[in-house]
Amino acid sequence: MKLGLIGIGKMGYNLAENVLDKGHELTVYDINPDNMKGLDAKGATIAGSIENLVSCLTSPRIIYLMLPVGEPVEQTIEQVLPQLSAGDILIDGGNSHYKDTLHRYTRLKKYGIHYLDCGTSGGVSGAKQGVCLMVGGDKEIYDYCAPLFLSISVAQGCVYTGASGSGHYCKMIHNGIEYGMMQAIAEGFELLQKSGFDYNLKDVAGVWNHGSVIRSWLMELLENALQTDCDLSGIKGIMYSTGEGKWSVEEALEHAVCTPVIALALLMRYRSLETDTFSGKVVAALRNQFGGHAVASCR
Amino acid sequence: MKLGLIGIGKMGYNLAENVLDKGHELTVYDINPDNMKGLDAKGATIAGSIENLVSCLTSPRIIYLMLPVGEPVEQTIEQVLPQLSAGDILIDGGNSHYKDTLHRYTRLKKYGIHYLDCGTSGGVSGAKQGVCLMVGGDKEIYDYCAPLFLSISVAQGCVYTGASGSGHYCKMIHNGIEYGMMQAIAEGFELLQKSGFDYNLKDVAGVWNHGSVIRSWLMELLENALQTDCDLSGIKGIMYSTGEGKWSVEEALEHAVCTPVIALALLMRYRSLETDTFSGKVVAALRNQFGGHAVASCR
Repeated sequence: MKLGLIGIGKMGYNLAENVLDKGHELTVYDINPDNMKGLDAKGATIAGSIENLVSCLTSPRIIYLMLPVGEPVEQTIEQVLPQLSAGDILIDGGNSHYKDTLHRYTRLKKYGIHYLDCGTSGGVSGAKQGVCLMVGGDKEIYDYCAPLFLSISVAQGCVYTGASGSGHYCKMIHNGIEYGMMQAIAEGFELLQKSGFDYNLKDVAGVWNHGSVIRSWLMELLENALQTDCDLSGIKGIMYSTGEGKWSVEEALEHAVCTPVIALALLMRYRSLETDTFSGKVVAALRNQFGGHAVASCR
Repeated sequence: MKLGLIGIGKMGYNLAENVLDKGHELTVYDINPDNMKGLDAKGATIAGSIENLVSCLTSPRIIYLMLPVGEPVEQTIEQVLPQLSAGDILIDGGNSHYKDTLHRYTRLKKYGIHYLDCGTSGGVSGAKQGVCLMVGGDKEIYDYCAPLFLSISVAQGCVYTGASGSGHYCKMIHNGIEYGMMQAIAEGFELLQKSGFDYNLKDVAGVWNHGSVIRSWLMELLENALQTDCDLSGIKGIMYSTGEGKWSVEEALEHAVCTPVIALALLMRYRSLETDTFSGKVVAALRNQFGGHAVASCR
C-alpha cells in the first residue's frame, strides 16, 4: 500500500524499516530531519514538510502517526487536517489516551476523515521485526488497511478490537498488566537476592524461561539484562513511567474495579523516584511524638 | 539411571511417564495402588510397599519423592530412613518449605544420606513432557544425579541453585511471582470486561501472545481457557492457594523486603474465598455511626 508516516523516533524509524521491508510505498516526515537519515537509501521518500508528505500520497490517503502522546499528536492532526479530503485515513499508532482518541474520531468524522486507533506493542525490536497490533475504529476502514497491518505485525499479532478507542484502551490495559507483571518479577528477584542463598540470578531467570509456569518475554529480557550486569549494580532502581499505568488505575477508579496489583505497581514507581518521602517523615515524627522513638536527623 | 519414585499423584504419574520415556529404570510406589495403574505396562516396576521399593534399588539408591507438602513428606522420610544406607540419595521434588528442607538435610546428613531439594515447575503437562527444575543440595550429589535431571527437564530447564534449601526457596519465589503475574493479568481482563467496549477477550489474549511485551505462558493458558468459555461464566472467581505465595510473603516479612504486589495478590486470593467479610461489616457500621450512611441488612 501507499502511505505516509509522521514521527520518526525510535519506534517510528523501526516501523518505517518494517513497512519498507514489506514492500509498501512510504513517505516519511519528522520535525527533526536528522531522525530520517538513511530511510531514503532504504526506499522511503523523505518529505520536507507535512504538506509535502500529503502531496506524495493519493486518495484515499493513509497517514500513520507514530508520535509522542498528547500535544505532538494534537498539533500534527491540526496541521495535517486542512490538507486532507473526505475519505482519507489517519492511523494513530502511538499511546494516545483512548478518550482523546474518541474526541479525535468524532471531530475528524465531521470532515469525512477516518480515524483508526492502533495500539502497538513489542518494543523497539518488535517495531522493526513485527509488531503486535490492537486496532479500533470503523470496521470497513480497518478492513481496508488490514493488508498494511497484517504485513507489519507478527503472525496472529493483529486484532480488530471494535469501536473507536478500543485499540488504545486495549493497549493501555496491556501496559497496566505489564506494570504488574514487572513488579511481581522484580519483587521475586529482590527476595532471591536478600534470601541469604547465593543465587546466580541470570541462571535463575534463564531456567525459568525454559519450561516454568512464569516463562515470558519479560523474563527473557531480564535474563538478557542480568547477562550484561549480573546484579544490576550498574543501574539505579528508579522506575520511570509514561502514562498508561496511571490511566489504567484511573479507569479502575472510574469503573470501581478492584485492581490492587496494578495500582501498587504504579505507586511503587512513584516511590522509586524519591530518595526520601514526606510520608516517611510524618510517620517518623508521629512515632517520636507518642513513643519517643528515635528519628533519623537530616543534619 | 535406576531410581524409585514415591508419590504417584497427578504430577508423580506424569513424571513417572517422563522418567520411563527417557529410558531410566523405575520402581514406583504410592499409598494408593490405583494411582499406579498402567505404569507397569509402561515399563515401571510397581512396588507394594516402601520396603519393597527400596529392595528393588541398588546402592547408592536414588529415591525421588513427589509428595504433597508437609506430613506426607515427613512420614515417608521416617518410613524409608531405616531401609537406607550411607550414600543413598533422597530427592524431594515437591513444594516443601525450604526450612523443612534444611532440617531434613541436616537430619539425614547424620546417617550419611544425601538430600536434594528439587523445585519443579511446568504444571502437569510439563511433568510429562519436560519439567523446569531448580535443584539445591550438595554439588557433587547434584552432579551425580544430573543425567536424571537433565533428561527429564526441557532443554536448559535445569539449574543447580546452590546450597541445600535453595532449590525449594527458588521454587517458592517462582510461585510468588506467579501469584503477582496472574493477579496483574486478571485485573487487566476485568478492566477490559467492564470498559464498555465489546472485546472478544479470547482474541485479546491471543493477540497479546503474538509479539506483545506481555506474551507469556500464563497468557497462553488464559487464551486456552477463554477458548472454552469466552467470558469464564462457567467458573466461580474463587482463588484457592497452596502455600508458596504465603511463604513468599512471610519471607518478605522476615527479611523486611517490600513486596506489595505479591502480598496483595495473596490477600486477594483470601478475599475471593469469602462472599462477605467482617471488615466490610466494620466499615459499613462505622459509616453508619458517623454519617448515618445506609447499610445493607442481612435480613
